[in-house]
Amino acid sequence: MKAFMSSLADAVRRTGTPLIVGLDPRYDQLPAPLCGGGNANSMEHRARCYTTFCRGIIDVVGNTVPAVKPQAAFFEALGPAGMTALADVIGYAQRAGLLVVLDGKRNDIGSTAAGYADAWLGRDGKSAWGADALTVSPYLGDDSLTPFVDAAVKHSAGLFVLVKTSNPGGRTFQDLTIEGQPLYRHVAALVEAVSAEHADGEAYGPVGAVVGATYPAQLEELRDAMPHTWFLVPGFGSQGGTAADVAAAFDAEGLGAIVNSSRGIIFAHNGAAYAERFGAARWQDAVAAATADAVAQLGADTPAGKLR
Amino acid sequence: MKAFMSSLADAVRRTGTPLIVGLDPRYDQLPAPLCGGGNANSMEHRARCYTTFCRGIIDVVGNTVPAVKPQAAFFEALGPAGMTALADVIGYAQRAGLLVVLDGKRNDIGSTAAGYADAWLGRDGKSAWGADALTVSPYLGDDSLTPFVDAAVKHSAGLFVLVKTSNPGGRTFQDLTIEGQPLYRHVAALVEAVSAEHADGEAYGPVGAVVGATYPAQLEELRDAMPHTWFLVPGFGSQGGTAADVAAAFDAEGLGAIVNSSRGIIFAHNGAAYAERFGAARWQDAVAAATADAVAQLGADTPAGKLR
Repeated sequence: MKAFMSSLADAVRRTGTPLIVGLDPRYDQLPAPLCGGGNANSMEHRARCYTTFCRGIIDVVGNTVPAVKPQAAFFEALGPAGMTALADVIGYAQRAGLLVVLDGKRNDIGSTAAGYADAWLGRDGKSAWGADALTVSPYLGDDSLTPFVDAAVKHSAGLFVLVKTSNPGGRTFQDLTIEGQPLYRHVAALVEAVSAEHADGEAYGPVGAVVGATYPAQLEELRDAMPHTWFLVPGFGSQGGTAADVAAAFDAEGLGAIVNSSRGIIFAHNGAAYAERFGAARWQDAVAAATADAVAQLGADTPAGKLR
Repeated sequence: MKAFMSSLADAVRRTGTPLIVGLDPRYDQLPAPLCGGGNANSMEHRARCYTTFCRGIIDVVGNTVPAVKPQAAFFEALGPAGMTALADVIGYAQRAGLLVVLDGKRNDIGSTAAGYADAWLGRDGKSAWGADALTVSPYLGDDSLTPFVDAAVKHSAGLFVLVKTSNPGGRTFQDLTIEGQPLYRHVAALVEAVSAEHADGEAYGPVGAVVGATYPAQLEELRDAMPHTWFLVPGFGSQGGTAADVAAAFDAEGLGAIVNSSRGIIFAHNGAAYAERFGAARWQDAVAAATADAVAQLGADTPAGKLR
């Protein structure tokens, strides 16, 4: 099986866009027609709505974007029923030809990290959840990443390690200066070294980095510092990052980064730009329009435009 | 409802021990008699075994220790069936009178962090999983902790933020020096400030810290620096930390810390000290003996001995 980052590059070339759609379902923002009549207090009911909603989004974007990013938190919030919905959504997305980056920001030490890695990573059908890639937190250090890297190599899967996150508080620790370099650069150096070590002749190794769209200068700096590291860029759209802000995340070919949009696409029917045009009844048309607009923006204002 | 850390102090006083038993089920180490005859490749079968195994441990330790710490990774590794087992185990432990610290090392930004907090924290029966406390990772910074703190205050629940972890690689980033202080001291300062702010007249606030037993000097240093912060101390037993190593984690009353042991207790039937005496058939007697020994060690060599 092809390495994840190579599959991702293929998918970006095929679709002509680096847009990844975040699946962050929230019950109170679902389109009303989709979930009427059920018991809003029942987690099983909510979980069924999440499945229907996410499948509906996948039906719209399945041929348009390379990947989706389900956010574990919102499914976990519904207990075991939510986790069953998450498993369904991952499988449905993959059957639609999409790569699935599970956003769980997991980590732990030693054999426990191996537990998470075995749980989530497995494009070969040999893990419980079978995601193509997983987001991972770095605070526990180098030996905590090893089991994830081993599992990624074994299953041809990918990782995205938090380096510079898109939230304002990302500065609290990530920007503290150590020997003339902020902490995120020290994390970046580890990620790049491990990814380069396992690149196996490909342009990008199995370990990617999460770098927020809200910090364009750092995107540019990190792109230079991490030539073997694919970026997952959150913060585009609802969090304020523009397509121009993320332009520096790409390599000269227009590869090397995927740019996430969640709320701006999946809840487009509620958004100022689309609500009047489509409304809740035509929520899938709103998703299609918001996706097309994001694809166009990224094509116009970033090197990914070369791929179209 | 009483604040979590006050409930924890009560439970430590009542049982006379700071020992928390880690529930880290691994299929290949389960006592053979407990799970014979099923299909080892079936996640549903494995999940049923985890439920039986964890309930069996809770039956043994329920009146002996204040709390248990289920490790989310091992349940996640079994997919939705594992998550159903986890929910069962949390409820069973609480009905046995135990406090439940869910070890998930979760975090994310803003409203997604709120998703995790709402999912896991809720001693009042109003969350999906209803754990009494949750472990949280700090890399995303101050604003990522806020939704967890808000949820902890709202639900009288607790948090334990990773400060100084027990693994060798914990040094990679946590020990980097910033303005004369290692990174973990900067994280500690934030945790202590937030916990003190929400202590509401109690000795300890709702935000605790994870500090490894394998770093005794740092335990002492952090106990001084974090007077409003209860410690969760992993690394005792199988990871090499002794009772003497964790003595500095406690306050003068013998409170302020819980000390975790996982493998050394739950898989005692496989361990050198108990295998011959009990074997797999009497695995629950091995759990009872290992628990009693750990309680005795912590009583003899730490200030928690005053509580007995």
